[in-house]
Amino acid sequence: MLNTNWFTEIFEQSGSAFSLQIKGKLFEQQTAYQKIEIFDTTHFGKLMVIDGCVMLSSRDNFIYHEMMAHPALLSCTAAKEVLIIGGGDCGTLKEVLKHHTVEHVTQVDIDEGVTRAAEIYFPELCSANTDPRATLLFDDGIAWIKNKAPESVDVIIVDSTDPVGPAQGLFTQEFFSDCYKALNQGGIVIQQSGSPLLTPNEMVEMRQAMRAAGFVSLQSYQFPQCVYPSGWWSATAGGKNINLSEAANSISDKLSFDTQFYSVAGHHGAMVLPPYLEKLLNEN
Amino acid sequence: MLNTNWFTEIFEQSGSAFSLQIKGKLFEQQTAYQKIEIFDTTHFGKLMVIDGCVMLSSRDNFIYHEMMAHPALLSCTAAKEVLIIGGGDCGTLKEVLKHHTVEHVTQVDIDEGVTRAAEIYFPELCSANTDPRATLLFDDGIAWIKNKAPESVDVIIVDSTDPVGPAQGLFTQEFFSDCYKALNQGGIVIQQSGSPLLTPNEMVEMRQAMRAAGFVSLQSYQFPQCVYPSGWWSATAGGKNINLSEAANSISDKLSFDTQFYSVAGHHGAMVLPPYLEKLLNEN
Repeated sequence: MLNTNWFTEIFEQSGSAFSLQIKGKLFEQQTAYQKIEIFDTTHFGKLMVIDGCVMLSSRDNFIYHEMMAHPALLSCTAAKEVLIIGGGDCGTLKEVLKHHTVEHVTQVDIDEGVTRAAEIYFPELCSANTDPRATLLFDDGIAWIKNKAPESVDVIIVDSTDPVGPAQGLFTQEFFSDCYKALNQGGIVIQQSGSPLLTPNEMVEMRQAMRAAGFVSLQSYQFPQCVYPSGWWSATAGGKNINLSEAANSISDKLSFDTQFYSVAGHHGAMVLPPYLEKLLNEN
Repeated sequence: MLNTNWFTEIFEQSGSAFSLQIKGKLFEQQTAYQKIEIFDTTHFGKLMVIDGCVMLSSRDNFIYHEMMAHPALLSCTAAKEVLIIGGGDCGTLKEVLKHHTVEHVTQVDIDEGVTRAAEIYFPELCSANTDPRATLLFDDGIAWIKNKAPESVDVIIVDSTDPVGPAQGLFTQEFFSDCYKALNQGGIVIQQSGSPLLTPNEMVEMRQAMRAAGFVSLQSYQFPQCVYPSGWWSATAGGKNINLSEAANSISDKLSFDTQFYSVAGHHGAMVLPPYLEKLLNEN
């Protein structure tokens, strides 16, 4: 039924699959870490795939990138120093740099190949890469953060692939302990935490790991993301001596920059989890 | 890549497709109106497909059914008389009957075959069909509502397939005019209005049709729905001499029944549309 003009990602653990119709493959590279592919789709613009898993499309990445950047940055009293681990496509970086409070962003992605491919095929996401406030490093973020000076970062955004392969270490208590140490008082870490429908246990496990690492205030956010399994996604944040719920309520609803998906009211809406999920998270 | 053990629905107009892995087909019937198929899936329970389009799965239908029923019913001061047009799987009916205010529900679905199949394969959705407050009719809802006494219904829920084939007439100004006439003062009509990402113009057109039919207060709601195109769906409501936004704010957050997805806070969150969509709807 779906011929070779389609790219299909099968989600084995949920017996579901998502496909996009393609005009052709624009790019393929096996780096030292992973296989990067870029497709030209008929209706979703460019599509980046890593090791067979959809990373982003031109059409709907704005949702994910805005939700990874703005809730955490706006909840922080004054986010000056930001660290992005992963995020090689630079879409999150671009959103972070929209914040005037931000004085410096360091992005640490293990694979330079992702950023070089994004510069060619997703130039709109890389438009802020030359911002003097940005430093792009290509290094192992898990090792890198261990050497980060204590209390030297305001927000850490972990914009990674799912917890398999090289990203696995980004979902552990040890990693979140290193984040906790590196964060200033009032600092926030946020990480993508999977589908609320298909993999709610990923959210449970991430919250357990964050809690064990010292984060007392936890907040998960849910939002649509068409190209990811189930079309519904989440991010989970941990606050270091900051109450994330109270912080969200004190955000001014006047933003100093344009957004397509994010709004302060939508931020509050994203914090409301359905009762079945609330129950699961509270019990674990 | 996807062999015959998968059911795939292709969304031509967005160049995307969604697939579920199946164990087998349990049922197939060509009725006078449409082809009904029921599959047994590996991870989503039973799957109902009409004319090749996914209607619902056991696993995630609770989201759609709760969002079609509760926001409208709770926004209405006292929803006593409810009309469901379509809704043959009876999932919406079951949610409606959870409301103690409801004295009577009439469900008018054109195709008895859908309800008979649901009774066998989705018995959990049909558990309230024998409620003495429920009347199930198998008739053409578009014609039926023309003969409904003026000001005799509090809430009309249009739980239909997409605007193609027999359901097309459920998306017109003429139909919404008939709904307006049948509604009591303070009454509400709600109808599914497609994907906010892929078909926002369906929302625009529905709102235009509702407005032209006399509805002054319009409110769209967005929510996840894994098995529908993009995994993100919407419903749009029109109020007859009721402000839907104010009505939502006056709902008590103490519900008298259990829900899996719906909460009053989530209802408010579902009313927040992303800026790109807000802009599109405001301009049209």
